Amino acid sequence: MSAGERWFPGHLRTLTEVECRELLDARQVGRVAYCDEHGPVVVPVNYTLDGDGVLLRVSPHTSLALHLRSAPAAFQVDEHDDYTQSGWSVLVRGQATWVDPADHPAADRLSPWPEGQRTLHVRIEAREITGRRLVAA
Amino acid sequence: MSAGERWFPGHLRTLTEVECRELLDARQVGRVAYCDEHGPVVVPVNYTLDGDGVLLRVSPHTSLALHLRSAPAAFQVDEHDDYTQSGWSVLVRGQATWVDPADHPAADRLSPWPEGQRTLHVRIEAREITGRRLVAA
Repeated sequence: MSAGERWFPGHLRTLTEVECRELLDARQVGRVAYCDEHGPVVVPVNYTLDGDGVLLRVSPHTSLALHLRSAPAAFQVDEHDDYTQSGWSVLVRGQATWVDPADHPAADRLSPWPEGQRTLHVRIEAREITGRRLVAA
Repeated sequence: MSAGERWFPGHLRTLTEVECRELLDARQVGRVAYCDEHGPVVVPVNYTLDGDGVLLRVSPHTSLALHLRSAPAAFQVDEHDDYTQSGWSVLVRGQATWVDPADHPAADRLSPWPEGQRTLHVRIEAREITGRRLVAA
């Protein structure tokens, strides 16, 4: 649909934290973000909810692993529909740390899609969870 | 599909810059990221390609607008399929600046889905474009 034939603009609605958690709980892939000396980096990953946080598995000795050792991080999920021009997004902001999977039973649910030794478990402790839904007009 | 019944892990393949640009050119929604004092922030936005960069429209006087005035930023698009456990992602890293749409004819193609006065044009000049495809095993 081109700019000329588009529908009426949609309305943005703020999601409650409960709604955000339900949406987070229903997905398998999100995006983890961190900041390095050149700005933000955004990488898709498999995840699972773990109490107040998000749990990931990454390959050790990678740039991703090193930047998530103990640093501010974000985790984002969204979905959109090109036809109805609607969608939603949820953003978790908090602190990433390496964790021992033995302390986090949710780790049993984690099964990254790509091959490779993703043996390092990273947890992003949520300081803030926000989300918005774009409702078609 | 639970961890127990999942398929063989997929293979990650690096995309060429040409492939990354083709994927970027085919989408209407991506995610812009910036860093503030508490770490990274990731926000879905409509966009269009503009030469070597990505062009967005945002509401002035918002946190997003202020952080994209002249700062390192990233722009990300991806797609994945839960059933085949495959997908791809493209990441543009570079510098965000406010621009005059009169200098960027690509701005005519921009039509943000949400209502609101998204009158401020932001361009992320690509310093680096990278991408990966996760191919099902």
